[in-house]
Amino acid sequence: MISVGYLQFNPEFMNIDYNLEKAGKIIESYKKNIDILVLPELFATGYFFPDRSLLETVAEEPTGRTYQFLSKIAKKRDMAIYFGFPEKSYNKIYNSAMIIKPDGSFYVYRKNHLFYKEKKLFDTANSPIEPVTVNIRGMDIRLGLMICFDWFFPEVARTLALKGSDIILHAANLVMPYCPAATITRALENRVFIVLADRIGEEKVGDEVLKFIGMSRIVSPKGKILKYSTDREEIKSVYIDINEARDKSLNLLNNIFTDRREDLYFK
Amino acid sequence: MISVGYLQFNPEFMNIDYNLEKAGKIIESYKKNIDILVLPELFATGYFFPDRSLLETVAEEPTGRTYQFLSKIAKKRDMAIYFGFPEKSYNKIYNSAMIIKPDGSFYVYRKNHLFYKEKKLFDTANSPIEPVTVNIRGMDIRLGLMICFDWFFPEVARTLALKGSDIILHAANLVMPYCPAATITRALENRVFIVLADRIGEEKVGDEVLKFIGMSRIVSPKGKILKYSTDREEIKSVYIDINEARDKSLNLLNNIFTDRREDLYFK
Repeated sequence: MISVGYLQFNPEFMNIDYNLEKAGKIIESYKKNIDILVLPELFATGYFFPDRSLLETVAEEPTGRTYQFLSKIAKKRDMAIYFGFPEKSYNKIYNSAMIIKPDGSFYVYRKNHLFYKEKKLFDTANSPIEPVTVNIRGMDIRLGLMICFDWFFPEVARTLALKGSDIILHAANLVMPYCPAATITRALENRVFIVLADRIGEEKVGDEVLKFIGMSRIVSPKGKILKYSTDREEIKSVYIDINEARDKSLNLLNNIFTDRREDLYFK
Repeated sequence: MISVGYLQFNPEFMNIDYNLEKAGKIIESYKKNIDILVLPELFATGYFFPDRSLLETVAEEPTGRTYQFLSKIAKKRDMAIYFGFPEKSYNKIYNSAMIIKPDGSFYVYRKNHLFYKEKKLFDTANSPIEPVTVNIRGMDIRLGLMICFDWFFPEVARTLALKGSDIILHAANLVMPYCPAATITRALENRVFIVLADRIGEEKVGDEVLKFIGMSRIVSPKGKILKYSTDREEIKSVYIDINEARDKSLNLLNNIFTDRREDLYFK
């Protein structure tokens, strides 16, 4: 059994020091063991940047301050942490998320499906859609990585599952109401665990207000909601048996992978 | 605007005469206009056959008695009707569904994803996954056809949508609880209308009882439930604007089809 969790967070826009310290305190004060913790998209910077020049002031290279801060926690607590950050890479800025392993090694996924005005702020990514392996107490766990709007495209979770993902880690800043319920469909149709870490709070540019819906959750491969939040800042975790995600049998006669009719899809 | 509807039905096992007559009466007594009506999977025969030899006694060629009966109604009411039936074709039996157009012409879809013990009763199908066009008052409407367990595989609705389906007609005999809620995800992710016609009632073979959940519904491309049923036998319909399904824009900057990253999926 391994423990997965999420931090539903309310960052203060552009106040990275404050956000890192607050997130760190919440994690440190949570005494239960967590092997894999998911934080929201852009959790340390906030989301709603009016223009790219302001975003540039907080974009970080992968080994920047956010990594420096969280990798210490990952090491101390012996956990993997998945979190979103604005990634600076030469003259590009990506809406990225990183998984840090307890030993400090990391992998960066760049969001492939940009939502709405993100298209004016971030560069287009070309991240492979494939799981990252993390070893937890001798067991290799395969983690599929998604950021927010990626969920809308069924091919993303499907590709991650077909490539062997056990758990999909979903770092989000949700403003539309649809994702939390759809998480059940995504888990069921792919028979994987899903850990959705969303944020709460509001951000404003001019007259446009974005309200983030929270509703973070952990869903089992059978579509059961194991943990959920509404609109509070909080951390939650649950122990899961990864074998549930590796058995693709729905009953004695149906296996949702071998029953697929690849010969007929997209033809 | 066109009108789509479903008949949530409770058939008596193997009693085709009774079932046709009852379905006919319910349709005839419904006075509102319906352009496209969906009936459940295997609506005239019932579902839970203990063996293939009993199923063989009720399997029909496409132009059999069920077609004869419903095509008269389709003509009289100037409607298209989609319904499930056990299709006999030489020595094969398929779990099929037919769409009859008002002029009596028809198209048969054979279920590509057989559920559980259906695998012991029905033959494996190889139906193309593509919409059928029906002309309603001068407008060509493209109908995607699914039968029950097909919904579980996201590629089915996706393929139907990418090939231009406006409405997915879903004839079902649901025993698992997941589909009705998932209908919203399928509609949203593909921006299509979905008409789910399910059945109610119970059927028994030996000690094994199947309870059908009802919960038929009509969902809009924006995931709104336009009509729904719980556990009553009834017919419902609603007028829809097909253009809602043809506009794949989610907002000014996102289009759920052109935003797809086909270069990254299933690679």
